[in-house]
Amino acid sequence: MTKVTVLGAGSWGTALASVLADNGHDCTIWARRPEQAEEIMVRHTNERYLPGAPLPENLKGESDLKRATEGSAVIIVAVPTAGIREISRSLNGVLEGPVLFAHVSKGIEPDSLKRISEMMEEEIDEQFRTGIVVLSGPSHAEEVILRHPTTVTAACSDPELAARIQDLFMNRVFRVYTNDDVLGVEIGGALKNIIALAAGVSDGLGYGDNAKAALITRGLAEISRLGVAMGANPMTFSGLSGLGDLIVTCTSVHSRNWRAGNMLGKGMSLDEVLGQMGMVVEGVRTTKAAKQLAESRDVPMPITQALYSVLFEGEEPRRAVDSLMGRLKKHEIEDLFGMS
Amino acid sequence: MTKVTVLGAGSWGTALASVLADNGHDCTIWARRPEQAEEIMVRHTNERYLPGAPLPENLKGESDLKRATEGSAVIIVAVPTAGIREISRSLNGVLEGPVLFAHVSKGIEPDSLKRISEMMEEEIDEQFRTGIVVLSGPSHAEEVILRHPTTVTAACSDPELAARIQDLFMNRVFRVYTNDDVLGVEIGGALKNIIALAAGVSDGLGYGDNAKAALITRGLAEISRLGVAMGANPMTFSGLSGLGDLIVTCTSVHSRNWRAGNMLGKGMSLDEVLGQMGMVVEGVRTTKAAKQLAESRDVPMPITQALYSVLFEGEEPRRAVDSLMGRLKKHEIEDLFGMS
Repeated sequence: MTKVTVLGAGSWGTALASVLADNGHDCTIWARRPEQAEEIMVRHTNERYLPGAPLPENLKGESDLKRATEGSAVIIVAVPTAGIREISRSLNGVLEGPVLFAHVSKGIEPDSLKRISEMMEEEIDEQFRTGIVVLSGPSHAEEVILRHPTTVTAACSDPELAARIQDLFMNRVFRVYTNDDVLGVEIGGALKNIIALAAGVSDGLGYGDNAKAALITRGLAEISRLGVAMGANPMTFSGLSGLGDLIVTCTSVHSRNWRAGNMLGKGMSLDEVLGQMGMVVEGVRTTKAAKQLAESRDVPMPITQALYSVLFEGEEPRRAVDSLMGRLKKHEIEDLFGMS
Repeated sequence: MTKVTVLGAGSWGTALASVLADNGHDCTIWARRPEQAEEIMVRHTNERYLPGAPLPENLKGESDLKRATEGSAVIIVAVPTAGIREISRSLNGVLEGPVLFAHVSKGIEPDSLKRISEMMEEEIDEQFRTGIVVLSGPSHAEEVILRHPTTVTAACSDPELAARIQDLFMNRVFRVYTNDDVLGVEIGGALKNIIALAAGVSDGLGYGDNAKAALITRGLAEISRLGVAMGANPMTFSGLSGLGDLIVTCTSVHSRNWRAGNMLGKGMSLDEVLGQMGMVVEGVRTTKAAKQLAESRDVPMPITQALYSVLFEGEEPRRAVDSLMGRLKKHEIEDLFGMS
C-alpha cells in the first residue's frame, strides 16, 4: 500500500484516484473547494464531474493542501494546464521531502511553449521531486469510473520511475504500458485536442465520417511532424498516447473538445461556446501554442492553422474545412509527411 | 469525357459511378441482375443498396457484360473479393483491346493468399490490360452519394496510371491522392475489416470507447507489421487507405463489418450473423487469410488470432477480448512493434 495524493477533483483526477483506491492504496484527492472535498470524503460522490458514479469508500477528500499531501510518496497532478504553475509553486510551501510526481494534464503553455513536465520542473524545488512521469492515453474518465477496459502509457526518461507508476495503477481493467519518450507523449496528448476541435467543427457542419477520418489521419501526420522536429520518437505517435488518444477524443461523445468544435461548426461564436461549456476546453489555448511552435520550427500544420483562423481570426468554419479538404492534388506520402 | 464501366452495382460501385457521372463521364454500371440495371437506367435509383438516393440521370445501367464494356477506356471493378476471379475471366471473352483497370475491393483470398490486383493479373489476359490501379480510403458509399467531402488514395506502381484515375474521379468534394505502394494500400484496405469486426465485438460486449481506441491502435500496429514484412512502405499505413479507412470502418454506423462484430459480441453465432446481414462481410474471410499470412511470415498478430478463435473455433468473445486487453505489462513501443 502506497500513500498517494491526487491534486485536482475534476473528472479525470477523480477517476484515477478511484483506480488507486480500488488497488488498495491510501489515496486522498485534494479539492480546492472544501464542500467538494467533503462530498468525496463523506458521501463518496463527485456529482459535478462524475454524476451518478459511486466512489470507493476508502477514497479520501481534503481541501487543505498540506494535510492532503502529508506523508505521500507519490503525487498525481490532475489540474488544467493553466493551473499547473500555481499548484506546483504551492507545493514548495507544504512538502517536507522528495516525492515521485505523475501528471495527467494535456496542454502546452502559450508564449513560453513549455510542456507540462517542463513547467513543473521550473516551479517545484528540486529537493521535493525524485522525478516526473506523464500518464496519458485513450481514457475517458466516464468509462474508467465504470471499470470499462482502458489502456494508457506511463512515460519517463527513467524507466524505473515509469514502472513505479505502472505498478500503482495497473489492475485487471486498467492496463498501463511504459515508454521513455516524455516529449512525444506530452506533445501527442496536448495536440490531439486541436484535431478533436477540428473534427467537431466538421461534424457540426454536417460533414460525415469520411471527412472526419481524413481530418484525423492528416491530423496525426501533422502532430507527428511537429513532434519529430522537436525530438520525439516517431513511433510514440502510433501508440496509445498518440493515435489511441486522438481517436477516442475525436469520436467519442464524452470529449469536451469535440463538443466545443461541434458548437463552433453549428455557428456559435467562441465566447458563446466557452460560456456554455462551463469546463476548461484545453484545445483552444493549445491551438495558439501549437501555431507558435509550428511557426518557430517551420513545420507545416494546415489543420492547426485553419482552426486558429476560426478561433481567433473570425474565419468561417465552412470555408476553413473546405479549404483543408480541397488542397491541391498530390502524391499522398509527400503530402502527409510534409515533403512537398 | 471518358467512357467508363463500373462492374458491380453494390453500394460502393454505385456511389463511385455517380462521382464519375457527376464529372461528366460516359459511365455505365454493369449489374448482374437485369432488373437492377433497368432500375438504374430508367428510375435512376438503386433502392436495395443506396435506398432513397437519386442517381445522376446520365448514369447508365446494363446487365450484358459485352454491351456494358464496349468502347470503354477504363473499367472499375467493384465486386466482392470472392467474385474477382470469375468477373476477371469473363472479361477475356468480351474485351477487344487493352483498358485501364481500377479496383475498389477489399480482401485477400484464403489459401492462395493473393491480393485483389494479383488475382486480376492472373485472370485477365495481358493483352486486355494496360495496368491495374487500386482506389481505397475512408469512404462510406452512403456519404459519397450525399456529396459529403471524401478523400481517397489511388495507387499504382506506374504513377501516370494512378494520376489518370485521380483525374477521372477528382472533384470539389471527392479528393483523390496518389501513392505508388499497391501492396500497402491493398493490405491496409483488406485487414482493417478484421479490426472493425473486433471493434464491433468489443462494443457488443458493452466495453467503451477507451477499449475500442486501444484495439484500433494495436490493430493498426499489427496490420503495419504484416504489411512491412511483405514489402509495403510503412508510411502507407499512416495514410488514408490505412489509418483513415481503419478509423471510419471501426467507428461508423455504416460499417457492415463493425455491425457483424457487434452482433457477435452480443452473443449471436457467426451463422446467425451472416444470415441476418444479407450482404458480404469481407472481414470474415479476410481473418482466415490474414491468420495464414501471419503464420507464414511469423508475424505476431494477436487481434487477428483472437478474432479467428471467436469466428472459427468457438471461443467466447468476452474471453478473447479480455485476454487481448490483459496481456503482460510491457514497454509500449516494444509491444506495439512486436519487438519482444
